[in-house]
Amino acid sequence: MQIVIIGSGNVAYHLAKAFVLNKIPVAQIFGRNETELQKISSELNIPFSNEKPEDADLYLICVSDSSVENVSELITKTDCLVAHTSGSLPKEIMVGAYRKSSFYPLQTFSKSKDLEYSKIPFFIETENEEDQKTLTELALKISENVMESTYEKRKYIHLTAVFACNFVNHLFSRAKEISDAQEIPFDYFLPLIDETVQKIHEIDPKSAQTGPAVRNDKRVLELHENLLKDESLDIYKTLNLSIKKMYQLP
Amino acid sequence: MQIVIIGSGNVAYHLAKAFVLNKIPVAQIFGRNETELQKISSELNIPFSNEKPEDADLYLICVSDSSVENVSELITKTDCLVAHTSGSLPKEIMVGAYRKSSFYPLQTFSKSKDLEYSKIPFFIETENEEDQKTLTELALKISENVMESTYEKRKYIHLTAVFACNFVNHLFSRAKEISDAQEIPFDYFLPLIDETVQKIHEIDPKSAQTGPAVRNDKRVLELHENLLKDESLDIYKTLNLSIKKMYQLP
Repeated sequence: MQIVIIGSGNVAYHLAKAFVLNKIPVAQIFGRNETELQKISSELNIPFSNEKPEDADLYLICVSDSSVENVSELITKTDCLVAHTSGSLPKEIMVGAYRKSSFYPLQTFSKSKDLEYSKIPFFIETENEEDQKTLTELALKISENVMESTYEKRKYIHLTAVFACNFVNHLFSRAKEISDAQEIPFDYFLPLIDETVQKIHEIDPKSAQTGPAVRNDKRVLELHENLLKDESLDIYKTLNLSIKKMYQLP
Repeated sequence: MQIVIIGSGNVAYHLAKAFVLNKIPVAQIFGRNETELQKISSELNIPFSNEKPEDADLYLICVSDSSVENVSELITKTDCLVAHTSGSLPKEIMVGAYRKSSFYPLQTFSKSKDLEYSKIPFFIETENEEDQKTLTELALKISENVMESTYEKRKYIHLTAVFACNFVNHLFSRAKEISDAQEIPFDYFLPLIDETVQKIHEIDPKSAQTGPAVRNDKRVLELHENLLKDESLDIYKTLNLSIKKMYQLP
């Protein structure tokens, strides 16, 4: 099977790398950004082009959600399978007479951070069973967690991921902003952060909740509000209110 | 040195356990809740009382912030050192003629979750150098990370911890609420959550940010808002706005 990866961002890079590491040949990596393509191409030893996508059986569109539709128009071939990797787009967003599918890896990708690909859940949606089998087998070469998923479900998977990953990371950024301003090394907090996450491997997060809000400790909540301002204060109030509601505190 | 631990909650239990595991004798665990005291006492083989604190050189008050002041009144002895374990109280909150101090372990404690005590940062504040030495040496028997800290600094350490731990855990709860409602197993998200945290051991969280908000993907943001309601919607809007401000998005 001839595979072309389209894109040169975090997802394109990591999927290409996962394929190469698992000895799945990638015929080409295609995109706009020549500098990034060149880097990926030389690291992974995959041909690249920023002019014309190679003829292929499977195109994997790994570009930002807002570009998927436009990029999908570049594939003029009809007898092929095209998958996008977005968590929040229906496969029908793609424009073309080819068979459409979704190949969604549930993970946060940064080029500078290595990943253990075998643990990444892949969610697959296709138009027919044969394509489902093709993409499932492909994903199973990378990961042990491969599942079918409709667009309806995928939307919620992506939304959950935003809370559990993107927002969590932003809280780390705001936390670091607070500690940096006091010249407290952020490294102090890493054992606490590690434990916060290890905990939910064993305990339901609702039962694992600690801190002043769930204790309904109004003195501390007020003290903290006085130390905060702007967005961090808004976050503080919003999250405390949400904790209050979840635990039905007075 | 004769040590008495006061309290029967998460912090009391884990400090008692850390002491016992590191062969530091605990003379007594004292508190109100006989059931909990009995459990800790029989697990760790420490005498307990819910009537009268034993005579000691060091009392460690491990109760909720709002009870520290009241509990501190129970210590009538004057020639002794008393430490509370709160992140957000000055040592002067304690009422008594004894020497006052703070012994603050930066970690999230749940009785049902084992901990690696050697990684917990301890922050210590005392009235004089001798007490500082005593508490530092004690903490060093448990952990390799022991530091001095003023109340001013401790307040901010605790506040940072609320963002990096308590709020993060609450986001996991809200995330799980979303996935539960769609019958999506929360286990799917654990590799993503693990990676989110592993990342910040290597990359500054501000550089590690991914997701629709930092990409300023208005279509996805709107789509998600339509899937949410109540507190989760408030969290979604507040955190996206904060991301928008941090990255100066239009």
